Amino acid sequence: MLNIGIIGGSGYTGGELMRLSLFHPEMNIELVTSRRLNGKKIHTVHKHLNQLIDLEFENLKPLQVIDRCDVVFVAVPHGTSMNIVPDLLANKKKSVKIIDLSADYRLNSKVFEEVYGRIHKDKRSVVYGIPELYKVAKEQFIANPGCYPTGAILAAAPLADADLIQLAVFDSKSGISGAGASESKVSHYPNLAENINAYKLTTHRHFAEISQELTKLSNINLNLSFTPHVIPSIRGILTTAHIFTNEDANLTMGDIKELYENFYKNKPFVRILDTIPNLSSVRGSNFCDIGFEIDEKNNRIVVVSAIDNLVKGASGQAIQNMNLMCGFDESLGLLHAGLLP
Amino acid sequence: MLNIGIIGGSGYTGGELMRLSLFHPEMNIELVTSRRLNGKKIHTVHKHLNQLIDLEFENLKPLQVIDRCDVVFVAVPHGTSMNIVPDLLANKKKSVKIIDLSADYRLNSKVFEEVYGRIHKDKRSVVYGIPELYKVAKEQFIANPGCYPTGAILAAAPLADADLIQLAVFDSKSGISGAGASESKVSHYPNLAENINAYKLTTHRHFAEISQELTKLSNINLNLSFTPHVIPSIRGILTTAHIFTNEDANLTMGDIKELYENFYKNKPFVRILDTIPNLSSVRGSNFCDIGFEIDEKNNRIVVVSAIDNLVKGASGQAIQNMNLMCGFDESLGLLHAGLLP
Amino acid sequence: MLNIGIIGGSGYTGGELMRLSLFHPEMNIELVTSRRLNGKKIHTVHKHLNQLIDLEFENLKPLQVIDRCDVVFVAVPHGTSMNIVPDLLANKKKSVKIIDLSADYRLNSKVFEEVYGRIHKDKRSVVYGIPELYKVAKEQFIANPGCYPTGAILAAAPLADADLIQLAVFDSKSGISGAGASESKVSHYPNLAENINAYKLTTHRHFAEISQELTKLSNINLNLSFTPHVIPSIRGILTTAHIFTNEDANLTMGDIKELYENFYKNKPFVRILDTIPNLSSVRGSNFCDIGFEIDEKNNRIVVVSAIDNLVKGASGQAIQNMNLMCGFDESLGLLHAGLLP
Amino acid sequence: MLNIGIIGGSGYTGGELMRLSLFHPEMNIELVTSRRLNGKKIHTVHKHLNQLIDLEFENLKPLQVIDRCDVVFVAVPHGTSMNIVPDLLANKKKSVKIIDLSADYRLNSKVFEEVYGRIHKDKRSVVYGIPELYKVAKEQFIANPGCYPTGAILAAAPLADADLIQLAVFDSKSGISGAGASESKVSHYPNLAENINAYKLTTHRHFAEISQELTKLSNINLNLSFTPHVIPSIRGILTTAHIFTNEDANLTMGDIKELYENFYKNKPFVRILDTIPNLSSVRGSNFCDIGFEIDEKNNRIVVVSAIDNLVKGASGQAIQNMNLMCGFDESLGLLHAGLLP
Repeated sequence: MLNIGIIGGSGYTGGELMRLSLFHPEMNIELVTSRRLNGKKIHTVHKHLNQLIDLEFENLKPLQVIDRCDVVFVAVPHGTSMNIVPDLLANKKKSVKIIDLSADYRLNSKVFEEVYGRIHKDKRSVVYGIPELYKVAKEQFIANPGCYPTGAILAAAPLADADLIQLAVFDSKSGISGAGASESKVSHYPNLAENINAYKLTTHRHFAEISQELTKLSNINLNLSFTPHVIPSIRGILTTAHIFTNEDANLTMGDIKELYENFYKNKPFVRILDTIPNLSSVRGSNFCDIGFEIDEKNNRIVVVSAIDNLVKGASGQAIQNMNLMCGFDESLGLLHAGLLP
Repeated sequence: MLNIGIIGGSGYTGGELMRLSLFHPEMNIELVTSRRLNGKKIHTVHKHLNQLIDLEFENLKPLQVIDRCDVVFVAVPHGTSMNIVPDLLANKKKSVKIIDLSADYRLNSKVFEEVYGRIHKDKRSVVYGIPELYKVAKEQFIANPGCYPTGAILAAAPLADADLIQLAVFDSKSGISGAGASESKVSHYPNLAENINAYKLTTHRHFAEISQELTKLSNINLNLSFTPHVIPSIRGILTTAHIFTNEDANLTMGDIKELYENFYKNKPFVRILDTIPNLSSVRGSNFCDIGFEIDEKNNRIVVVSAIDNLVKGASGQAIQNMNLMCGFDESLGLLHAGLLP
Repeated sequence: MLNIGIIGGSGYTGGELMRLSLFHPEMNIELVTSRRLNGKKIHTVHKHLNQLIDLEFENLKPLQVIDRCDVVFVAVPHGTSMNIVPDLLANKKKSVKIIDLSADYRLNSKVFEEVYGRIHKDKRSVVYGIPELYKVAKEQFIANPGCYPTGAILAAAPLADADLIQLAVFDSKSGISGAGASESKVSHYPNLAENINAYKLTTHRHFAEISQELTKLSNINLNLSFTPHVIPSIRGILTTAHIFTNEDANLTMGDIKELYENFYKNKPFVRILDTIPNLSSVRGSNFCDIGFEIDEKNNRIVVVSAIDNLVKGASGQAIQNMNLMCGFDESLGLLHAGLLP
Repeated sequence: MLNIGIIGGSGYTGGELMRLSLFHPEMNIELVTSRRLNGKKIHTVHKHLNQLIDLEFENLKPLQVIDRCDVVFVAVPHGTSMNIVPDLLANKKKSVKIIDLSADYRLNSKVFEEVYGRIHKDKRSVVYGIPELYKVAKEQFIANPGCYPTGAILAAAPLADADLIQLAVFDSKSGISGAGASESKVSHYPNLAENINAYKLTTHRHFAEISQELTKLSNINLNLSFTPHVIPSIRGILTTAHIFTNEDANLTMGDIKELYENFYKNKPFVRILDTIPNLSSVRGSNFCDIGFEIDEKNNRIVVVSAIDNLVKGASGQAIQNMNLMCGFDESLGLLHAGLLP
């Protein structure tokens, strides 16, 4: 049984780590920090955890966390993580695994500084924790991917890896929980219900992750674009990837299905469908469902992926990484069905 | 490990039994019947179960089900169950436990005939399976309660038991999944979204269950009423119980809280709150959250209960009954957090 | 053509007054005040008014408003109105009509002070502007009713007036726009979607209006209760009125329908239905739909009313009052169909 | 005052024609046909029209309709219209204007036969009724555009007209009312709420309209794609048009804004915004809001358009066409604000 610490546990990803830990046979939530909520019962904030997790939020320093934990999840805002992680990694308990859910370590630090407009204080190179793409088993520290990038990268990776992408437009539609637990104009019910908001049409920060990872996979130049939307849904990201291939690619549905099935062989959380995926089949689960259709005239393949942004797009993927880093089966405690209906 | 059969597994309660079984260490789904879907992969209907349950629907007779199972859940429409259960109970494998999720065995058969307007073919007396009220551990066959009655009865039982109720109005608000997996005018998105539908204002069949159970608990006459509504939510039932007590009851909030906490002592799925419960804290879980407020001038106590209609209101409660009937801990495999947000 | 001023036009009721004025042949929006938004184009806040209303918010004193207007709607928060209205009424342009949409003048001032916990600075007696109950044609100043009270009072008034109510429970379900244009924990989409929130179970301020008006109508003592809920809908209030009559009332559906049709004869905005009303038929319109069912065993009549909280529950009713106060037909510019679907 | 006939008035577009006619000073609904609902009061189906339109559905032949009407809207299913329109046009009352809301006359008949898989029985050439693109004033018969095409064409027309489009991906998100008033698996609330459905990823019939119209405008070859989605909203279509221009186009935001403002000069229903449009600002109204952003690196312009699919995407545009065909001001009776919130 691993003692788990969550640094910054007041938000949705913190709550989700706790919810998912209750299904996991090897996770014991040992501590959850929050400066603001120090001393408050966790279940007064995360009300679904009432009578399930009886801890209080604590205000702890990194070394205090390390002392009591085997695995630490860092769930603090972007820009804060880089101030905490170096102290966590400087500890002597060499076996403590660290998984950072912020954006701080996902990008090449130079790109990070451009995209996030701030100096990076800790320029170490860290594995980007999509376990479908990278081996994470021997890592002590992992950068957990962003929610949009998880959906977009998994949708396009097999085609990028096969050097089949010339131009791709990722048009993503997210539930509002990706914007966090704090209320805002955008999350105000009368503004979001019966509506859909396109935003940061050409400038969303997550584009840098998508670009970084797909470019690594492809030997040919990629023209990539990304536009996010918020839909009236609490959870989930549907990514519609409009992928234009070479004119002479001439792929059949069978070819693509084989390509995807081979690429994701033995990856328990990617399900290749014969139908078009949607959010309700993955809600609350760690699955990424993928389906597609070919537009022959245009050399376009439309790939659709569906994830739960808080699970495969955040906390579930973090636990998937933890499983591998700790020598467990990749899917331990994570093979749940989504909440359908 | 128990082999589980589900008779009539194409609907939401069938899907939910399967989803919940994946968290349960002693449940192995052995077979799922459906005449209409015979031979079809279960996950083509219950898409969240893709790669988790690899069975096909089967068309089986009761005895074939009994032969292969230790526990059988009957999830067929009202009026059908009474044609199946007698055969199931007539089997020689005396240890097979049967839990009926239809309305057929919940009511005194005379009341059933009045309320459902049909002859009851199997008038045996069966325990009403609310484990917070009845001992079910020694039963072989249990009638699983209706969704509205579960929320209403749990909200009012402590006060009924204390002979404190004179008049009670149960005004319930349900998610639409209670109406089933088939589309209808009411479930048509443009009709339900941004709306609320009051229906069967004075004539809903579930009233008979509420009345039967609360009347049993109370030594004084009860004037009970029930009006259901459908709200734009997939899951959940919020019951607002307006309970009028004797003029001289003079209860304080502390009195009521103590009454409820004593009544539900050692009942792991009832949570008595200091706040007003709502659906998001119980979504997907087997909890019933209860809160209240006193209206002194009117001798009114407003008790609010929240359940997930498909879990505590159906399949979760069925598994809770199964746990007790099979000698397991009442909460085995069921102590999950709801899906919040 | 009347010149219209709106004092406090940044909120939903202000926006709604402007939207509705575009259908009205005699309303010219002359000015809209907002201290906070002074100088800002109105359509940058009320985006649906883009290219329809080209004014800017102004920061004006009461007398400046009076100088330029024939009718003034006061749409400021409770407690603010009583500081503005005396100046408006002290003007020399005696013909300017004033309609206050706040709570300040709806209640007997003594009751106001109890319920709102503040001293009333202007204790004049003002007509409660439900035009279905009161003659408002000769008034210069009207207190426009609250949203919940409008739905509840119209549902029960005919029965109260006929001395038929002994006990009534008003269980109301409102869209979230009633809570205003500013974001809050309650209006945060992940908190409200797929949920329903009961609140102020026994202490909502609008109860005082309901009680004041129904008590005036009835010659017998009334035991009245009110519990509000917020549902996942932008607009609308459905009120389920559980009304208990004398044991010897013995009313038929026909009796009640006749009673209601007589009571609301020549009232163009009350529609008595043979079915149960819901929000989608009144969305965006000034109608109040009413339906009912009798529960003979319990001497209970369940009356359901549906209104749009921002129209009949606020700005539409204000214009209905204006029509009468200005000598127009009651329904001038207001007889629109709701937005269905 | 024009006498208006609606052939096929049981659906959403029929209801919407009636709702909008109530705001129009020159429209008198004279008759509404429905074979299925013959003799039934219209307001029992379109409940928002209760006490506003007191007609019954009638079962009439084309000539009977012509006899009583000045303008006829044909709102029947695709494939049915071509059986009715020839009779309507063969009438002697030469001044009767006909507007067909089906797909039958929108496409070149050869393309129609390919796309809809049926023989076209009436191959006359008809003006495609987007009044922002075509002069319709002198037409007797107009084909009213599809909902998706209206949003997509208006979003891209200025760029197509300026020969600036090389490749464009239209990723559209529609409310479910576009699928009609009849319930279906897709419109079943538990399937659509908290979800988004991509469908017909590469094969939606409306693509032919988009392609036909933009190709006409452009002097250079266009690579066009279209993928539709259904979102949990009743009304509205948001189209995200990812438009790739020539590498040497080098357009600034100012250039594009000027281009659009010039193109839509004196078009009262197109609003060019400095922000990103969304559905709530156009809900219930005839406006098409358009905004954009430039992605310089990729020579991509993201244009976003928002319409109400039932108004500018169907019945409102039909009335706009009628206004022009009948010599009225284009915006007569149509310049309403959307229903916000």
